[in-house]
Amino acid sequence: MTHTPTSVSTGATPLSSTPRSTVRRGHKRSRTDRAALYDVLDSCLICHLGLVRNGAPVVLPTVYGRLDDVLYLHGSTGAASLIAAADGAPVSVAVTRLDGIVYARSVFHHSMNYASAVVHGTASPVTEPAAKREALRVVTEHVAPGSWEHARLPTRKELAATAVLALPLDEASVKLRSGPPNDDDPDVAGHEGWAGVLPLRRHWDAPQPCPLLADGTPVPPHVAGRDLP
Amino acid sequence: MTHTPTSVSTGATPLSSTPRSTVRRGHKRSRTDRAALYDVLDSCLICHLGLVRNGAPVVLPTVYGRLDDVLYLHGSTGAASLIAAADGAPVSVAVTRLDGIVYARSVFHHSMNYASAVVHGTASPVTEPAAKREALRVVTEHVAPGSWEHARLPTRKELAATAVLALPLDEASVKLRSGPPNDDDPDVAGHEGWAGVLPLRRHWDAPQPCPLLADGTPVPPHVAGRDLP
Repeated sequence: MTHTPTSVSTGATPLSSTPRSTVRRGHKRSRTDRAALYDVLDSCLICHLGLVRNGAPVVLPTVYGRLDDVLYLHGSTGAASLIAAADGAPVSVAVTRLDGIVYARSVFHHSMNYASAVVHGTASPVTEPAAKREALRVVTEHVAPGSWEHARLPTRKELAATAVLALPLDEASVKLRSGPPNDDDPDVAGHEGWAGVLPLRRHWDAPQPCPLLADGTPVPPHVAGRDLP
Repeated sequence: MTHTPTSVSTGATPLSSTPRSTVRRGHKRSRTDRAALYDVLDSCLICHLGLVRNGAPVVLPTVYGRLDDVLYLHGSTGAASLIAAADGAPVSVAVTRLDGIVYARSVFHHSMNYASAVVHGTASPVTEPAAKREALRVVTEHVAPGSWEHARLPTRKELAATAVLALPLDEASVKLRSGPPNDDDPDVAGHEGWAGVLPLRRHWDAPQPCPLLADGTPVPPHVAGRDLP
């Protein structure tokens, strides 16, 4: 399977490019505009946080939210790895949206349509109560838009039991692939089988009310009418 | 947002437990049976590979396949990071399936329903031609079942231009969350809003034939009738 170039940069506010954030393969597939970064981050719900612990890499899924050029990562204070990451150590955060499977005429040119962002930097804990509350609002409104208004807000104790990390969006790489397979000419001419893309989509299924809910409690619009991010 | 325990282990063949693979939070949510690990790996399509480069973590999305207790990761030979990982360095591979958003009565108990696996180990490159071909078959049949039979198979040159890493499934942690919110009793009694789960599902959209395909080329059953993994 190969990764063939299909997109070009339309960047106005370039992302910084360093050796580790410069895309080494399928480079014509990379994007350097900030809008592309925002699009990937805003259209997904979970990220994978990578950090180094005892010399070895650890990757963990978690939820996040973005406000302007800061990514907020959520973690319980019991999460040793998040705490370690918060201690000024370098982190890498990847967000990937899979859009479809590319069935090429050759196995070699099989691929995926996707959008991915990898952010590098140093995460720092958000500790000042008002800032932490705001960061938690950003994460909550990303994961469950409308909940900050609908649900009971965090108490001081709950806020203390929650860890939020801030990661500036200074250094990031964005990659996109879209469109049909990119087969070699002899395969296009000579292969009689099918080739194309099988798109993968997401959808919300019907809301499942909590069994402890009073009968007839209406599903609010922010849940019933939620759009995909 | 908290991560509340909802699942128990039913393990018959336990996964090894070491400090780094022992789940530190939401521990009752962890699974130690191999079947749970297989289920997560087999029901997703992309993984996030973490490794250490120049002392800093790097997380990259890629495709994979599983054969028994070996995970095969795919990468072009141009991917510097995969090559580095192949050099006997420790890696961490995370696979996460997001199943829904848990809307609790409190912001604090908001959560996600999900299944995740994090595998730790040392990846090694698969270089022997027959083994590499087989590993590539495993990855291809995971990402695009039926393609190994339908598409043109890799040439020797294409095989040489492809890197496949093997990672033994020796050390892994698996976490699952399912079910309704786990609110505090006072919130259950006193909150008048809605609480429940909004399930997130995936579906295949209609296949998009390659524009270069001859008119009338039928969509084969392995694409048209593909089930979700």
